[in-house]
Amino acid sequence: MITVKTITLIGAGNVATHLGKALLNNGISINEVYSKSIANASFLASVLNASACNNIQDLNTESDLYLICIKDDCIESVVKQFAFTDKIVVHTSGSVPMDVLSKFDHYGIFYPLQTFSKKAKTNITEVPFCIEGINNETEQTLFNLGEMLSDNVHLINSEQRKKIHLAAIFACNFSNYMYSISETLLNQNNIDFEILKPLIIETAKKIQHNSAKSMQTGPAKRNDEAVIKNHLKMLADDKDYQDIYKLITDNIIKGN
Amino acid sequence: MITVKTITLIGAGNVATHLGKALLNNGISINEVYSKSIANASFLASVLNASACNNIQDLNTESDLYLICIKDDCIESVVKQFAFTDKIVVHTSGSVPMDVLSKFDHYGIFYPLQTFSKKAKTNITEVPFCIEGINNETEQTLFNLGEMLSDNVHLINSEQRKKIHLAAIFACNFSNYMYSISETLLNQNNIDFEILKPLIIETAKKIQHNSAKSMQTGPAKRNDEAVIKNHLKMLADDKDYQDIYKLITDNIIKGN
Repeated sequence: MITVKTITLIGAGNVATHLGKALLNNGISINEVYSKSIANASFLASVLNASACNNIQDLNTESDLYLICIKDDCIESVVKQFAFTDKIVVHTSGSVPMDVLSKFDHYGIFYPLQTFSKKAKTNITEVPFCIEGINNETEQTLFNLGEMLSDNVHLINSEQRKKIHLAAIFACNFSNYMYSISETLLNQNNIDFEILKPLIIETAKKIQHNSAKSMQTGPAKRNDEAVIKNHLKMLADDKDYQDIYKLITDNIIKGN
Repeated sequence: MITVKTITLIGAGNVATHLGKALLNNGISINEVYSKSIANASFLASVLNASACNNIQDLNTESDLYLICIKDDCIESVVKQFAFTDKIVVHTSGSVPMDVLSKFDHYGIFYPLQTFSKKAKTNITEVPFCIEGINNETEQTLFNLGEMLSDNVHLINSEQRKKIHLAAIFACNFSNYMYSISETLLNQNNIDFEILKPLIIETAKKIQHNSAKSMQTGPAKRNDEAVIKNHLKMLADDKDYQDIYKLITDNIIKGN
Protein backbone atom coordinates (compact mmCIF):
# COMPACT_ATOMS: atom_id res chain seq x y z
CA MET A 1 0.00 0.00 0.00
CA ILE A 2 1.23 3.48 -0.79
CA THR A 3 0.03 6.80 0.56
CA VAL A 4 -1.13 8.95 -2.32
CA LYS A 5 0.30 12.47 -2.18
CA THR A 6 0.04 13.75 -5.75
CA ILE A 7 -2.69 13.14 -8.31
CA THR A 8 -3.21 13.86 -11.98
CA LEU A 9 -6.81 14.45 -13.03
CA ILE A 10 -7.82 13.13 -16.44
CA GLY A 11 -10.87 15.26 -17.21
CA ALA A 12 -12.07 18.72 -16.22
CA GLY A 13 -15.83 18.31 -15.90
CA ASN A 14 -18.14 18.12 -12.88
CA VAL A 15 -16.65 14.97 -11.36
CA ALA A 16 -13.04 16.13 -11.83
CA THR A 17 -13.90 19.53 -10.38
CA HIS A 18 -15.66 18.21 -7.27
CA LEU A 19 -13.10 15.47 -6.59
CA GLY A 20 -10.15 17.75 -7.35
CA LYS A 21 -11.31 20.37 -4.87
CA ALA A 22 -12.07 17.78 -2.20
CA LEU A 23 -8.66 16.14 -2.64
CA LEU A 24 -6.86 19.49 -2.45
CA ASN A 25 -8.83 20.38 0.70
CA ASN A 26 -7.57 17.15 2.23
CA GLY A 27 -3.88 17.81 1.61
CA ILE A 28 -3.40 15.97 -1.69
CA SER A 29 -1.68 18.01 -4.39
CA ILE A 30 -3.11 18.03 -7.85
CA ASN A 31 -0.10 17.85 -10.08
CA GLU A 32 -1.75 18.21 -13.49
CA VAL A 33 -5.15 18.44 -15.15
CA TYR A 34 -5.75 16.92 -18.59
CA SER A 35 -8.61 17.81 -20.87
CA LYS A 36 -8.85 17.55 -24.64
CA SER A 37 -9.79 21.23 -24.43
CA ILE A 38 -6.77 23.15 -23.16
CA ALA A 39 -9.09 25.97 -22.05
CA ASN A 40 -11.02 23.60 -19.76
CA ALA A 41 -7.83 21.99 -18.48
CA SER A 42 -6.28 25.39 -17.75
CA PHE A 43 -9.38 26.67 -16.01
CA LEU A 44 -9.59 23.78 -13.55
CA ALA A 45 -5.79 23.66 -13.20
CA SER A 46 -5.76 27.30 -12.11
CA VAL A 47 -8.38 26.58 -9.45
CA LEU A 48 -6.38 23.58 -8.18
CA ASN A 49 -2.92 25.13 -8.47
CA ALA A 50 -1.90 22.49 -11.05
CA SER A 51 -0.42 22.50 -14.54
CA ALA A 52 -2.63 21.92 -17.60
CA CYS A 53 -2.22 19.47 -20.47
CA ASN A 54 -4.25 18.51 -23.54
CA ASN A 55 -2.19 15.60 -24.80
CA ILE A 56 -2.18 12.34 -22.86
CA GLN A 57 1.21 11.39 -24.23
CA ASP A 58 2.73 14.51 -22.68
CA LEU A 59 1.43 13.73 -19.17
CA ASN A 60 3.81 14.42 -16.36
CA THR A 61 4.89 11.03 -14.94
CA GLU A 62 5.55 12.26 -11.39
CA SER A 63 2.08 11.66 -9.88
CA ASP A 64 1.29 8.81 -7.49
CA LEU A 65 -2.14 8.26 -9.04
CA TYR A 66 -4.00 9.09 -12.27
CA LEU A 67 -7.72 9.66 -11.74
CA ILE A 68 -9.82 9.32 -14.91
CA CYS A 69 -13.01 11.46 -14.71
CA ILE A 70 -14.23 11.57 -18.30
CA LYS A 71 -17.31 10.33 -20.14
CA ASP A 72 -17.76 6.55 -20.06
CA ASP A 73 -17.42 6.07 -23.78
CA CYS A 74 -14.15 8.04 -23.98
CA ILE A 75 -12.28 6.05 -21.31
CA GLU A 76 -11.06 3.25 -23.55
CA SER A 77 -9.57 5.47 -26.22
CA VAL A 78 -7.88 7.75 -23.67
CA VAL A 79 -6.36 4.74 -21.89
CA LYS A 80 -4.82 3.59 -25.18
CA GLN A 81 -2.89 6.85 -25.45
CA PHE A 82 -1.05 6.58 -22.13
CA ALA A 83 2.71 6.40 -22.75
CA PHE A 84 3.44 4.68 -19.42
CA THR A 85 1.99 1.66 -17.62
CA ASP A 86 3.79 1.62 -14.27
CA LYS A 87 1.46 3.93 -12.34
CA ILE A 88 -1.79 3.52 -10.43
CA VAL A 89 -4.58 4.44 -12.84
CA VAL A 90 -8.22 4.42 -11.74
CA HIS A 91 -11.53 5.52 -13.23
CA THR A 92 -14.65 6.95 -11.63
CA SER A 93 -17.38 5.37 -13.75
CA GLY A 94 -20.28 3.26 -12.51
CA SER A 95 -20.70 1.28 -15.68
CA VAL A 96 -17.28 0.79 -17.31
CA PRO A 97 -15.55 -2.52 -16.43
CA MET A 98 -12.31 -2.34 -14.47
CA ASP A 99 -10.37 -4.35 -17.02
CA VAL A 100 -10.46 -1.48 -19.50
CA LEU A 101 -7.43 -0.42 -17.39
CA SER A 102 -5.62 -3.75 -17.58
CA LYS A 103 -2.58 -2.40 -19.44
CA PHE A 104 -1.46 -0.74 -16.21
CA ASP A 105 0.50 -2.47 -13.44
CA HIS A 106 -1.92 -1.13 -10.81
CA TYR A 107 -5.49 -0.15 -11.46
CA GLY A 108 -8.89 0.11 -9.91
CA ILE A 109 -12.15 1.96 -9.43
CA PHE A 110 -12.89 5.10 -7.45
CA TYR A 111 -16.63 5.59 -8.15
CA PRO A 112 -18.46 8.35 -6.28
CA LEU A 113 -22.16 7.45 -6.22
CA GLN A 114 -23.50 10.95 -6.50
CA THR A 115 -24.82 13.41 -9.06
CA PHE A 116 -22.51 16.40 -9.30
CA SER A 117 -23.39 19.68 -10.92
CA LYS A 118 -21.54 22.93 -11.34
CA LYS A 119 -24.22 24.96 -9.58
CA ALA A 120 -24.86 22.79 -6.53
CA LYS A 121 -22.50 22.30 -3.60
CA THR A 122 -22.13 18.67 -2.54
CA ASN A 123 -21.13 17.53 0.93
CA ILE A 124 -18.39 15.13 -0.12
CA THR A 125 -18.14 13.52 3.34
CA GLU A 126 -21.56 11.90 2.78
CA VAL A 127 -20.93 10.68 -0.77
CA PRO A 128 -20.72 6.87 -1.01
CA PHE A 129 -17.46 5.83 -2.73
CA CYS A 130 -17.34 2.41 -4.39
CA ILE A 131 -13.77 1.10 -4.38
CA GLU A 132 -12.24 -1.80 -6.25
CA GLY A 133 -8.58 -2.64 -6.87
CA ILE A 134 -6.86 -5.20 -9.06
CA ASN A 135 -5.01 -6.45 -5.97
CA ASN A 136 -5.19 -5.96 -2.22
CA GLU A 137 -2.47 -3.36 -2.15
CA THR A 138 -4.14 -1.13 -4.75
CA GLU A 139 -7.55 -1.67 -3.15
CA GLN A 140 -6.22 -0.59 0.25
CA THR A 141 -4.53 2.46 -1.29
CA LEU A 142 -7.79 3.53 -2.92
CA PHE A 143 -9.85 2.74 0.16
CA ASN A 144 -7.63 4.94 2.31
CA LEU A 145 -7.82 7.72 -0.28
CA GLY A 146 -11.65 7.43 -0.23
CA GLU A 147 -11.68 7.62 3.56
CA MET A 148 -9.77 10.89 3.45
CA LEU A 149 -12.74 12.40 1.60
CA SER A 150 -15.81 10.55 2.84
CA ASP A 151 -17.28 8.67 5.78
CA ASN A 152 -19.13 6.40 3.36
CA VAL A 153 -16.56 4.18 1.57
CA HIS A 154 -17.34 0.65 0.37
CA LEU A 155 -15.44 -2.18 -1.29
CA ILE A 156 -17.66 -3.05 -4.25
CA ASN A 157 -16.74 -5.52 -6.95
CA SER A 158 -17.43 -4.92 -10.65
CA GLU A 159 -20.57 -7.11 -10.72
CA GLN A 160 -22.07 -5.26 -7.75
CA ARG A 161 -21.04 -1.89 -9.17
CA LYS A 162 -22.97 -2.64 -12.38
CA LYS A 163 -26.10 -3.46 -10.34
CA ILE A 164 -25.71 -0.32 -8.24
CA HIS A 165 -25.31 1.78 -11.36
CA LEU A 166 -28.46 0.32 -12.88
CA ALA A 167 -30.39 0.89 -9.62
CA ALA A 168 -29.10 4.46 -9.56
CA ILE A 169 -30.58 5.09 -13.02
CA PHE A 170 -34.03 4.40 -11.55
CA ALA A 171 -33.39 6.20 -8.25
CA CYS A 172 -31.82 9.32 -9.76
CA ASN A 173 -32.31 9.75 -13.52
CA PHE A 174 -35.81 8.31 -13.68
CA SER A 175 -37.11 10.00 -10.52
CA ASN A 176 -35.79 13.28 -11.96
CA TYR A 177 -37.69 12.51 -15.15
CA MET A 178 -40.87 12.09 -13.09
CA TYR A 179 -40.22 15.56 -11.63
CA SER A 180 -39.68 16.82 -15.16
CA ILE A 181 -43.04 15.45 -16.36
CA SER A 182 -44.82 17.07 -13.40
CA GLU A 183 -43.08 20.35 -14.21
CA THR A 184 -44.21 20.14 -17.85
CA LEU A 185 -47.81 19.35 -16.84
CA LEU A 186 -47.89 22.38 -14.54
CA ASN A 187 -46.21 24.67 -17.08
CA GLN A 188 -48.83 23.67 -19.66
CA ASN A 189 -51.43 25.00 -17.24
CA ASN A 190 -49.55 28.10 -16.10
CA ILE A 191 -49.06 26.77 -12.59
CA ASP A 192 -45.72 27.42 -10.88
CA PHE A 193 -43.66 24.23 -10.33
CA GLU A 194 -42.74 25.77 -6.95
CA ILE A 195 -45.96 24.36 -5.46
CA LEU A 196 -44.72 20.75 -5.85
CA LYS A 197 -41.25 21.22 -4.38
CA PRO A 198 -42.09 20.58 -0.70
CA LEU A 199 -43.80 17.34 -1.75
CA ILE A 200 -40.77 16.24 -3.76
CA ILE A 201 -38.35 16.83 -0.88
CA GLU A 202 -40.66 15.09 1.60
CA THR A 203 -41.02 12.05 -0.69
CA ALA A 204 -37.22 11.69 -0.84
CA LYS A 205 -36.87 12.24 2.92
CA LYS A 206 -39.49 9.61 3.79
CA ILE A 207 -37.40 6.78 2.37
CA GLN A 208 -34.29 7.75 4.35
CA HIS A 209 -35.66 5.81 7.33
CA ASN A 210 -38.27 3.54 5.71
CA SER A 211 -38.26 1.12 2.82
CA ALA A 212 -39.43 2.78 -0.39
CA LYS A 213 -41.90 0.00 -1.07
CA SER A 214 -43.60 0.55 2.30
CA MET A 215 -43.90 4.29 1.58
CA GLN A 216 -45.82 3.85 -1.69
CA THR A 217 -49.07 5.85 -1.67
CA GLY A 218 -51.53 7.16 -4.26
CA PRO A 219 -54.38 5.99 -6.47
CA ALA A 220 -52.36 3.15 -8.03
CA LYS A 221 -51.41 1.77 -4.62
CA ARG A 222 -55.09 1.95 -3.57
CA ASN A 223 -56.16 0.69 -7.01
CA ASP A 224 -58.59 3.61 -7.13
CA GLU A 225 -60.01 2.94 -10.59
CA ALA A 226 -62.12 6.09 -10.87
CA VAL A 227 -59.16 8.42 -10.24
CA ILE A 228 -56.85 6.43 -12.52
CA LYS A 229 -59.40 6.46 -15.34
CA ASN A 230 -59.84 10.19 -14.96
CA HIS A 231 -56.08 10.81 -15.02
CA LEU A 232 -55.69 8.76 -18.19
CA LYS A 233 -58.45 10.85 -19.75
CA MET A 234 -56.69 14.07 -18.72
CA LEU A 235 -53.56 12.78 -20.49
CA ALA A 236 -55.43 11.90 -23.70
CA ASP A 237 -53.67 14.64 -25.66
CA ASP A 238 -50.26 13.47 -24.53
CA LYS A 239 -49.97 9.86 -25.55
CA ASP A 240 -46.39 9.49 -24.28
CA TYR A 241 -47.18 10.65 -20.75
CA GLN A 242 -50.35 8.57 -20.82
CA ASP A 243 -48.31 5.45 -21.66
CA ILE A 244 -45.90 6.18 -18.81
CA TYR A 245 -48.77 6.78 -16.36
CA LYS A 246 -50.42 3.55 -17.43
CA LEU A 247 -47.32 1.35 -17.30
CA ILE A 248 -46.16 2.57 -13.89
CA THR A 249 -49.68 2.39 -12.47
CA ASP A 250 -50.11 -1.19 -13.73
CA ASN A 251 -46.85 -2.19 -12.07
CA ILE A 252 -47.74 -0.56 -8.74
CA ILE A 253 -51.11 -2.34 -8.83
CA LYS A 254 -49.34 -5.65 -9.52
CA GLY A 255 -47.20 -5.00 -6.43
CA ASN A 256 -43.95 -5.20 -8.42
CA MET B 1 -66.09 36.00 6.46
CA ILE B 2 -66.10 34.26 9.80
CA THR B 3 -63.19 33.41 12.05
CA VAL B 4 -63.10 29.67 12.60
CA LYS B 5 -62.74 28.75 16.27
CA THR B 6 -64.04 25.16 16.48
CA ILE B 7 -63.68 22.35 13.97
CA THR B 8 -65.06 18.85 13.59
CA LEU B 9 -62.76 16.37 11.86
CA ILE B 10 -64.41 13.82 9.60
CA GLY B 11 -61.77 11.10 9.46
CA ALA B 12 -59.02 9.89 11.78
CA GLY B 13 -56.21 8.91 9.39
CA ASN B 14 -52.90 10.58 8.54
CA VAL B 15 -54.38 13.79 7.11
CA ALA B 16 -56.85 14.24 9.97
CA THR B 17 -54.11 13.57 12.51
CA HIS B 18 -51.59 16.01 11.05
CA LEU B 19 -54.16 18.76 10.40
CA GLY B 20 -55.88 18.23 13.74
CA LYS B 21 -52.64 18.61 15.68
CA ALA B 22 -51.59 21.66 13.64
CA LEU B 23 -54.98 23.33 14.14
CA LEU B 24 -54.91 22.65 17.89
CA ASN B 25 -51.37 24.07 18.11
CA ASN B 26 -52.68 27.24 16.49
CA GLY B 27 -55.50 27.83 18.95
CA ILE B 28 -58.40 26.16 17.12
CA SER B 29 -60.39 23.71 19.22
CA ILE B 30 -61.23 20.36 17.77
CA ASN B 31 -64.78 19.76 18.90
CA GLU B 32 -65.32 16.22 17.66
CA VAL B 33 -63.64 13.49 15.61
CA TYR B 34 -65.70 11.17 13.42
CA SER B 35 -64.52 7.84 12.09
CA LYS B 36 -66.54 4.81 11.06
CA SER B 37 -64.31 2.97 13.53
CA ILE B 38 -65.08 4.29 17.02
CA ALA B 39 -61.67 3.04 18.19
CA ASN B 40 -59.89 5.22 15.64
CA ALA B 41 -62.16 8.18 16.36
CA SER B 42 -61.58 7.83 20.11
CA PHE B 43 -57.84 7.50 19.75
CA LEU B 44 -57.43 10.72 17.74
CA ALA B 45 -60.10 12.47 19.84
CA SER B 46 -58.11 11.74 23.01
CA VAL B 47 -54.98 13.24 21.44
CA LEU B 48 -56.89 16.34 20.38
CA ASN B 49 -59.01 16.74 23.50
CA ALA B 50 -62.20 16.20 21.48
CA SER B 51 -65.22 13.94 21.65
CA ALA B 52 -65.53 10.90 19.37
CA CYS B 53 -68.37 9.82 17.08
CA ASN B 54 -68.94 7.00 14.60
CA ASN B 55 -72.29 8.06 13.18
CA ILE B 56 -72.44 11.11 10.90
CA GLN B 57 -76.10 11.70 11.79
CA ASP B 58 -75.15 12.14 15.44
CA LEU B 59 -72.53 14.82 14.73
CA ASN B 60 -72.46 17.69 17.16
CA THR B 61 -73.75 20.78 15.29
CA GLU B 62 -71.82 23.35 17.30
CA SER B 63 -68.63 23.53 15.16
CA ASP B 64 -67.82 26.45 12.87
CA LEU B 65 -66.37 24.15 10.22
CA TYR B 66 -66.46 20.45 9.26
CA LEU B 67 -63.21 19.23 7.72
CA ILE B 68 -63.53 16.02 5.69
CA CYS B 69 -60.26 14.02 5.68
CA ILE B 70 -61.31 10.60 4.41
CA LYS B 71 -60.53 8.50 1.35
CA ASP B 72 -61.60 10.09 -1.94
CA ASP B 73 -64.11 7.42 -2.84
CA CYS B 74 -65.89 7.61 0.54
CA ILE B 75 -66.53 11.37 0.49
CA GLU B 76 -69.74 11.28 -1.52
CA SER B 77 -71.49 8.67 0.62
CA VAL B 78 -70.45 10.36 3.87
CA VAL B 79 -71.72 13.72 2.62
CA LYS B 80 -75.14 12.17 1.94
CA GLN B 81 -75.47 11.21 5.60
CA PHE B 82 -75.08 14.71 7.03
CA ALA B 83 -78.27 15.70 8.87
CA PHE B 84 -77.62 19.45 8.52
CA THR B 85 -76.70 21.73 5.60
CA ASP B 86 -76.18 25.14 7.21
CA LYS B 87 -72.50 24.77 8.13
CA ILE B 88 -69.21 25.28 6.33
CA VAL B 89 -68.13 21.86 5.07
CA VAL B 90 -64.85 21.39 3.22
CA HIS B 91 -62.81 18.46 1.99
CA THR B 92 -59.06 17.94 1.71
CA SER B 93 -58.83 15.90 -1.48
CA GLY B 94 -56.81 16.75 -4.56
CA SER B 95 -59.01 14.91 -7.00
CA VAL B 96 -62.63 15.10 -5.80
CA PRO B 97 -64.70 17.93 -7.35
CA MET B 98 -65.90 20.66 -5.02
CA ASP B 99 -69.54 20.24 -6.06
CA VAL B 100 -69.75 16.91 -4.25
CA LEU B 101 -70.41 19.27 -1.31
CA SER B 102 -73.13 21.30 -3.03
CA LYS B 103 -75.89 20.34 -0.57
CA PHE B 104 -74.30 22.65 1.99
CA ASP B 105 -74.84 26.39 2.23
CA HIS B 106 -71.08 27.01 2.44
CA TYR B 107 -68.45 24.68 1.11
CA GLY B 108 -64.98 24.54 -0.30
CA ILE B 109 -61.58 22.87 -0.51
CA PHE B 110 -58.74 22.81 1.97
CA TYR B 111 -56.19 20.62 0.16
CA PRO B 112 -52.75 20.18 1.72
CA LEU B 113 -50.34 19.25 -1.09
CA GLN B 114 -48.16 16.95 0.96
CA THR B 115 -47.67 13.28 1.73
CA PHE B 116 -48.37 12.60 5.39
CA SER B 117 -47.36 9.48 7.24
CA LYS B 118 -47.75 8.40 10.82
CA LYS B 119 -44.02 7.93 11.32
CA ALA B 120 -42.66 11.10 9.75
CA LYS B 121 -42.95 14.58 11.22
CA THR B 122 -44.01 17.22 8.71
CA ASN B 123 -43.25 20.91 8.98
CA ILE B 124 -46.78 22.17 8.36
CA THR B 125 -45.66 25.78 7.86
CA GLU B 126 -44.06 24.77 4.54
CA VAL B 127 -46.97 22.69 3.25
CA PRO B 128 -48.72 24.27 0.24
CA PHE B 129 -52.47 24.57 0.89
CA CYS B 130 -54.79 24.81 -2.11
CA ILE B 131 -57.91 26.74 -1.16
CA GLU B 132 -61.21 27.12 -3.00
CA GLY B 133 -64.57 28.37 -1.76
CA ILE B 134 -68.03 28.40 -3.29
CA ASN B 135 -68.15 32.14 -2.68
CA ASN B 136 -65.75 34.92 -1.69
CA GLU B 137 -66.72 34.81 1.95
CA THR B 138 -66.08 31.07 2.34
CA GLU B 139 -62.90 31.33 0.30
CA GLN B 140 -61.57 34.12 2.54
CA THR B 141 -62.50 32.13 5.67
CA LEU B 142 -60.59 29.10 4.40
CA PHE B 143 -57.66 31.17 3.18
CA ASN B 144 -57.27 32.75 6.62
CA LEU B 145 -57.50 29.35 8.26
CA GLY B 146 -54.77 28.07 5.91
CA GLU B 147 -52.55 31.05 6.74
CA MET B 148 -52.79 30.21 10.43
CA LEU B 149 -51.02 26.92 9.65
CA SER B 150 -48.79 27.59 6.68
CA ASP B 151 -46.78 30.27 4.87
CA ASN B 152 -47.63 28.63 1.56
CA VAL B 153 -51.37 29.15 0.89
CA HIS B 154 -52.81 29.46 -2.64
CA LEU B 155 -56.22 30.10 -4.18
CA ILE B 156 -56.55 27.25 -6.68
CA ASN B 157 -59.69 26.53 -8.67
CA SER B 158 -61.00 23.00 -9.25
CA GLU B 159 -59.57 22.75 -12.77
CA GLN B 160 -56.10 23.75 -11.57
CA ARG B 161 -56.37 21.47 -8.54
CA LYS B 162 -57.01 18.48 -10.81
CA LYS B 163 -53.88 19.31 -12.83
CA ILE B 164 -51.79 19.75 -9.70
CA HIS B 165 -53.02 16.43 -8.34
CA LEU B 166 -52.11 14.66 -11.57
CA ALA B 167 -48.66 16.31 -11.59
CA ALA B 168 -48.20 15.25 -7.96
CA ILE B 169 -48.80 11.61 -8.92
CA PHE B 170 -45.70 11.79 -11.12
CA ALA B 171 -43.65 13.91 -8.69
CA CYS B 172 -44.46 11.89 -5.58
CA ASN B 173 -46.04 8.47 -6.19
CA PHE B 174 -44.10 7.64 -9.35
CA SER B 175 -40.74 8.96 -8.11
CA ASN B 176 -41.25 6.83 -4.99
CA TYR B 177 -41.93 3.87 -7.26
CA MET B 178 -38.59 4.52 -8.99
CA TYR B 179 -36.93 4.40 -5.54
CA SER B 180 -38.81 1.18 -4.87
CA ILE B 181 -37.52 -0.45 -8.07
CA SER B 182 -33.96 0.54 -7.20
CA GLU B 183 -34.44 -0.92 -3.73
CA THR B 184 -35.71 -4.20 -5.21
CA LEU B 185 -32.79 -4.41 -7.66
CA LEU B 186 -30.29 -3.93 -4.83
CA ASN B 187 -32.07 -6.36 -2.51
CA GLN B 188 -31.97 -9.01 -5.25
CA ASN B 189 -28.19 -8.64 -5.18
CA ASN B 190 -27.76 -8.38 -1.41
CA ILE B 191 -26.67 -4.76 -1.56
CA ASP B 192 -27.94 -2.41 1.13
CA PHE B 193 -30.36 0.27 -0.19
CA GLU B 194 -28.57 2.67 2.19
CA ILE B 195 -25.90 3.28 -0.47
CA LEU B 196 -28.41 5.04 -2.79
CA LYS B 197 -29.97 7.34 -0.20
CA PRO B 198 -27.53 10.28 -0.50
CA LEU B 199 -28.08 10.24 -4.27
CA ILE B 200 -31.87 10.26 -3.86
CA ILE B 201 -31.82 13.25 -1.50
CA GLU B 202 -29.40 15.15 -3.73
CA THR B 203 -31.57 14.52 -6.81
CA ALA B 204 -34.60 16.00 -5.02
CA LYS B 205 -32.55 18.94 -3.69
CA LYS B 206 -31.14 19.82 -7.10
CA ILE B 207 -34.54 20.73 -8.51
CA GLN B 208 -35.36 23.07 -5.61
CA HIS B 209 -33.45 25.83 -7.39
CA ASN B 210 -33.28 24.55 -10.98
CA SER B 211 -35.82 23.31 -13.47
CA ALA B 212 -36.12 19.51 -13.38
CA LYS B 213 -35.74 19.27 -17.12
CA SER B 214 -32.39 21.11 -17.00
CA MET B 215 -31.14 18.73 -14.27
CA GLN B 216 -31.71 15.55 -16.31
CA THR B 217 -28.54 13.44 -16.49
CA GLY B 218 -27.68 9.81 -17.27
CA PRO B 219 -27.26 7.46 -20.24
CA ALA B 220 -30.71 8.24 -21.69
CA LYS B 221 -30.02 11.98 -21.64
CA ARG B 222 -26.65 11.36 -23.37
CA ASN B 223 -28.26 8.72 -25.62
CA ASP B 224 -25.42 6.38 -24.63
CA GLU B 225 -26.55 3.35 -26.60
CA ALA B 226 -23.96 0.91 -25.26
CA VAL B 227 -24.89 1.51 -21.62
CA ILE B 228 -28.63 1.43 -22.36
CA LYS B 229 -28.31 -1.84 -24.27
CA ASN B 230 -26.34 -3.37 -21.44
CA HIS B 231 -28.92 -2.27 -18.85
CA LEU B 232 -31.76 -3.76 -20.88
CA LYS B 233 -29.79 -7.01 -21.01
CA MET B 234 -29.30 -6.95 -17.24
CA LEU B 235 -33.09 -6.61 -16.85
CA ALA B 236 -33.83 -9.51 -19.21
CA ASP B 237 -35.18 -11.66 -16.37
CA ASP B 238 -37.51 -8.93 -15.21
CA LYS B 239 -39.66 -8.04 -18.16
CA ASP B 240 -41.74 -5.48 -16.23
CA TYR B 241 -38.75 -3.45 -15.07
CA GLN B 242 -37.24 -3.78 -18.54
CA ASP B 243 -40.41 -2.30 -20.08
CA ILE B 244 -40.32 0.62 -17.63
CA TYR B 245 -36.61 1.25 -18.29
CA LYS B 246 -37.22 1.20 -22.03
CA LEU B 247 -40.27 3.46 -22.05
CA ILE B 248 -38.76 6.12 -19.78
CA THR B 249 -35.44 6.02 -21.63
CA ASP B 250 -37.19 6.42 -25.00
CA ASN B 251 -39.05 9.46 -23.68
CA ILE B 252 -35.91 11.08 -22.24
CA ILE B 253 -34.16 10.53 -25.59
CA LYS B 254 -37.11 12.11 -27.41
CA GLY B 255 -36.73 15.13 -25.11
CA ASN B 256 -40.31 14.85 -23.84
